[in-house]
Amino acid sequence: MTGIFISFEGIDGSGKSTQARLLADALRASGHGVTLTREPGGSAGAEEIRRLVLEGATDRWSAETEILLFTAARRDHVEKTIRPALARGDVVITDRFADSTRIFQGITRGDLSATVDTLHDLMIGVEPDLTLLVDLDPVQGLARATARAGAEMRFEDMGLAFQTRARAGFLALAARHARFRVIDGARSPDAVAADVLTQALTVIGAR
Amino acid sequence: MTGIFISFEGIDGSGKSTQARLLADALRASGHGVTLTREPGGSAGAEEIRRLVLEGATDRWSAETEILLFTAARRDHVEKTIRPALARGDVVITDRFADSTRIFQGITRGDLSATVDTLHDLMIGVEPDLTLLVDLDPVQGLARATARAGAEMRFEDMGLAFQTRARAGFLALAARHARFRVIDGARSPDAVAADVLTQALTVIGAR
Repeated sequence: MTGIFISFEGIDGSGKSTQARLLADALRASGHGVTLTREPGGSAGAEEIRRLVLEGATDRWSAETEILLFTAARRDHVEKTIRPALARGDVVITDRFADSTRIFQGITRGDLSATVDTLHDLMIGVEPDLTLLVDLDPVQGLARATARAGAEMRFEDMGLAFQTRARAGFLALAARHARFRVIDGARSPDAVAADVLTQALTVIGAR
Repeated sequence: MTGIFISFEGIDGSGKSTQARLLADALRASGHGVTLTREPGGSAGAEEIRRLVLEGATDRWSAETEILLFTAARRDHVEKTIRPALARGDVVITDRFADSTRIFQGITRGDLSATVDTLHDLMIGVEPDLTLLVDLDPVQGLARATARAGAEMRFEDMGLAFQTRARAGFLALAARHARFRVIDGARSPDAVAADVLTQALTVIGAR
């Protein structure tokens, strides 16, 4: 694969989706081929699996079945969207990837984190070249997330304690993997975007 | 789990669905609590995943994604249908279970058979107490299957060479696991049903 694979991670309301879009715009403006995508979803099949997971009651699927469905969706996303774009030489920017499963499923069912890792190694394998963790105090994140009236409050509806544990989980993951850069998300979107672009260009330039 | 878990396996057109139903009827008539189910499907969530897998073009999902979706469906089927029925003390009869994934995915992508086994051990675990392999010459099986005009010709539409390899795969699996009994499916449905009932009662009586 000749392209560059960048993921954005962070708690809900951190601004990562905005930042993913702003980075895509900035790189396109400077002549890079860019594929902007997201999870869950990101390919036609994965979007159908996304609907299956996100619609209906929260307890419709067990944590184990949900992890399998997310892994199926990710496999399709990688095959149909990410790998072809990397093969074309694109910068691929995804709003969430496997780290979100590690954190969110790991928080609700800590005993499943080894299962998540085993499934990832077995069925996905690929990791981003660069993961930008947009870090934000959950009090600010939750205020932003609940200000957006949206159909997808499923994961956002879990309150401050949940987001606090998610933030700590992301920071712990970032400390363990060299591909992470922690971005201070408490600043203005423009200031965050400038930081994000610098980090992305460093990795792109290193190729 | 206090019930008895019985699976039927075999190539398409072998008569296993008919035999599963006849066994359920016979056991109910003699006073047993029976849950008759099937795969892919067998629970509300698993039936939705079944539709996702079986609808659309054959190459819509890669073999890897398909295995993940089948495993997600099986996990839901076990959680929502099979385990509760076994806990009630029912005889649970399923038309196909994990052996079908082992054989059909293993035939189309032989290199994935270790993956299928690893996923099963990680996410499913449970195996039937008794697996009745209804064995039939694929020439007869294919004639029977194509005589039924059905929406689900996806797996049945793969021709004689495919069914021949599937039959050999099932027989090889049966030779490796003590839970299998090979039933000669070339006889009349009544003769097959009598044989099936004898095998089932032997296992039920041993409890």
